[in-house]
Amino acid sequence: MTTLEKIVSFAKRRGFIGPSSEMYGGFESSYDYGFLGAELKNNVKKAWWKSMVQLKENIVGLDSAILMSPKIWQASGHLTAGFADPLVECKKCHHRFRKDYLKENKCPDCGGELTEEKKFNLMMKTFIGPVEDEAAVTYLRAETCQGIYMNYEFIKDSMRLKIPFGIAQVGKAFRNEITPRYFIFKTREFEQMEMQYFVSPEEKEKDKWFEFWKEERMNWYLSLGIKKENLRFKEHEKDELAHYAKKAVDIEYKFPWGWGEIEGIHDRGDWDLSNHSKHSGKDLSYFDDSPSGERKKFIPHIIETSGGVERNFLAFLCDAYEEVEGGRTKTTEAAKETEVVLKFHKDLASIKIAVLPLLKNKKELVKKAREVYNLIKPHFMSQYDEAGTIGRRYRRQDEIGTPFAITIDFDSLKQDDLTIRDRDSMRQERVKIEKLVDYFCSLLK
Amino acid sequence: MTTLEKIVSFAKRRGFIGPSSEMYGGFESSYDYGFLGAELKNNVKKAWWKSMVQLKENIVGLDSAILMSPKIWQASGHLTAGFADPLVECKKCHHRFRKDYLKENKCPDCGGELTEEKKFNLMMKTFIGPVEDEAAVTYLRAETCQGIYMNYEFIKDSMRLKIPFGIAQVGKAFRNEITPRYFIFKTREFEQMEMQYFVSPEEKEKDKWFEFWKEERMNWYLSLGIKKENLRFKEHEKDELAHYAKKAVDIEYKFPWGWGEIEGIHDRGDWDLSNHSKHSGKDLSYFDDSPSGERKKFIPHIIETSGGVERNFLAFLCDAYEEVEGGRTKTTEAAKETEVVLKFHKDLASIKIAVLPLLKNKKELVKKAREVYNLIKPHFMSQYDEAGTIGRRYRRQDEIGTPFAITIDFDSLKQDDLTIRDRDSMRQERVKIEKLVDYFCSLLK
Repeated sequence: MTTLEKIVSFAKRRGFIGPSSEMYGGFESSYDYGFLGAELKNNVKKAWWKSMVQLKENIVGLDSAILMSPKIWQASGHLTAGFADPLVECKKCHHRFRKDYLKENKCPDCGGELTEEKKFNLMMKTFIGPVEDEAAVTYLRAETCQGIYMNYEFIKDSMRLKIPFGIAQVGKAFRNEITPRYFIFKTREFEQMEMQYFVSPEEKEKDKWFEFWKEERMNWYLSLGIKKENLRFKEHEKDELAHYAKKAVDIEYKFPWGWGEIEGIHDRGDWDLSNHSKHSGKDLSYFDDSPSGERKKFIPHIIETSGGVERNFLAFLCDAYEEVEGGRTKTTEAAKETEVVLKFHKDLASIKIAVLPLLKNKKELVKKAREVYNLIKPHFMSQYDEAGTIGRRYRRQDEIGTPFAITIDFDSLKQDDLTIRDRDSMRQERVKIEKLVDYFCSLLK
Repeated sequence: MTTLEKIVSFAKRRGFIGPSSEMYGGFESSYDYGFLGAELKNNVKKAWWKSMVQLKENIVGLDSAILMSPKIWQASGHLTAGFADPLVECKKCHHRFRKDYLKENKCPDCGGELTEEKKFNLMMKTFIGPVEDEAAVTYLRAETCQGIYMNYEFIKDSMRLKIPFGIAQVGKAFRNEITPRYFIFKTREFEQMEMQYFVSPEEKEKDKWFEFWKEERMNWYLSLGIKKENLRFKEHEKDELAHYAKKAVDIEYKFPWGWGEIEGIHDRGDWDLSNHSKHSGKDLSYFDDSPSGERKKFIPHIIETSGGVERNFLAFLCDAYEEVEGGRTKTTEAAKETEVVLKFHKDLASIKIAVLPLLKNKKELVKKAREVYNLIKPHFMSQYDEAGTIGRRYRRQDEIGTPFAITIDFDSLKQDDLTIRDRDSMRQERVKIEKLVDYFCSLLK
């Protein structure tokens, strides 16, 4: 079993994820994504956007701001005790903890006595405009979906949408967690991929769309290669439901420390649009004027799918991570090192193709390899590598999950072809250079 | 000449950009991007990333967090008067203004007397962790490049980079502007596309890379279709330079209200890495150990390219916007409406292809059109539209800048083909359905 420590150290060593502000003593609220991490994260978001927006006729995208009017958070209930965690403080060392994460009733740092719990609100405050007083306070958004409700009419009208339809958004959100933990799983700054699906009360009653999105979202993870045995649904009990939710199910992934939520599917009823209608004075009712419709007004119900980008990232990374003791090519050499292969789905892999001249010190090979690199890089994220033996370079690409490695050898100079090595099967195939782009187009697009 | 008011109203009407928090009385710090705006914004960022990362062998990407240690902003000089604007207050009505934006020495709202100017710092504050006091204060990043300096060694080492190399990043930044203005041009929340290019002091001296990036960035705007006469370089005078800059040039676009900066190219010297070395105690010197190198240690110099995503967006939108009085097809009908065409470069266009059955009430046409739509949408962002006359649907697509419109007519049913209308030439071409995906692949990829 892979441990979280291994993943953290691997992610840093290979340039996927580094700790924040390390030069200045660190900063535990967030992480930074190196090149391979930035690409992987972008690819997760792109795959989600493609499946949720591009491939769906009745779902459109949105990009709303992080900063919004504080009145929205007042109306949504985020500024009250409902959006707060239980905080306790040690009477002796004054360290603070999230009560429900503690196993004992004594301070884990010094053994001191703890105070009674109080509710700690998770909204992060800032000040807007050229004054710094209560009138200027606003908040960093704690969820992207409020931006969707604010733009519900703008989007519906400008895009001429009829129910059922969805609005999808990817973006940052902030929660002042008392205790960030499990690497990038729970951080104070994070990114969400949320879709709100607006349906009529009748269709909602039959749970048709709740069930549809439950299956759809689970299938998305499976289609991107996560192993079935590492995924499960977890239904929320009635007493676990958030104040706005009628019904909720989590998609959980089996992380090294146990099962953890990577996405939630929620039936939010008509709570959000009713509530914002009430607080803003603007009626958000939908009028069904379709010829087949019943020509009536109603507040749409919402089925939400809400995924965490970093949690997705970590699940994809853990699931792809494999260690092969003694190396992948079982030669007779003794004491070969353990090798790592990241078996990413090709849509997620940070680098799609590596271009490797067989030898670095043969000018003709290097020249040809660079021609090939220049040929493919306008089409696919590629990497040129000439440092070290060819076996070592294959291992380096396996470690970062590159699905294909191209080698230019002496035959390439005569035949205008090259070998393509498949990361998972390690099989090699010879392909003519003139057919290379088409070859990869059919495999990678 | 197009006015900014026209662009604002058009952007809202067609679902590109809407005002923030409108239901709750508005929020002047930011804007929300509807579907077409979100796609256009993503396409601007993708085009930048492709040109700056994918196509450059020695530039890699990064995705660092918005929240970082406050010590970074202390070290960078952002918490002092250097990163502040001149603020004045009216002694009568107490409204506050940015001094250098005022034409007169009297309050523009009530004519009252103004106070002496004081420096107003632009950093936006927040509190981290389960306490709210000075010890917990941090800031939303005011520029993405500090995240690049923090990760300079992590990226260099994990990606085994040799100078000269670059690190590129796209992400949000926040500045508490006294007076946001010109629509999305100056807002308190905005997005940057920044690249820091690390070079040796010798190469820097010759201005080689400064000149290289100046040309490279200008050519990028030209390659994406911005008219040459609407772009210019603006050199900064010595006394206009920021505290870190040795040399700076802006790329300016001719907006409806005048010339405005959309990107800056800066020679930052060795200021950033020297300064962070000094404040953090970590030596960020580079050791040139290449066989051809001189085996010496130095603090790399930095050439920066820093573009604004929203400013780019607005420049691309203004430049693409054309009004055609009396309509594009000069028929004999009197009093035809003015039509709008957005002549976006195909890489930027929000929707690439529209699929239109000639008539909505002919089942066979609708069925065939839906087959075609399903065929192309896995490959390109597409839109199906059957509402209104075909001429009206063409105009709707012209208005949002869709480069290609497909029409399925009665001949399509017999011949398995369709017409493709080009937005700019309005010419139509008949293409076989089986060749459609390849046809667009060569035009759009």
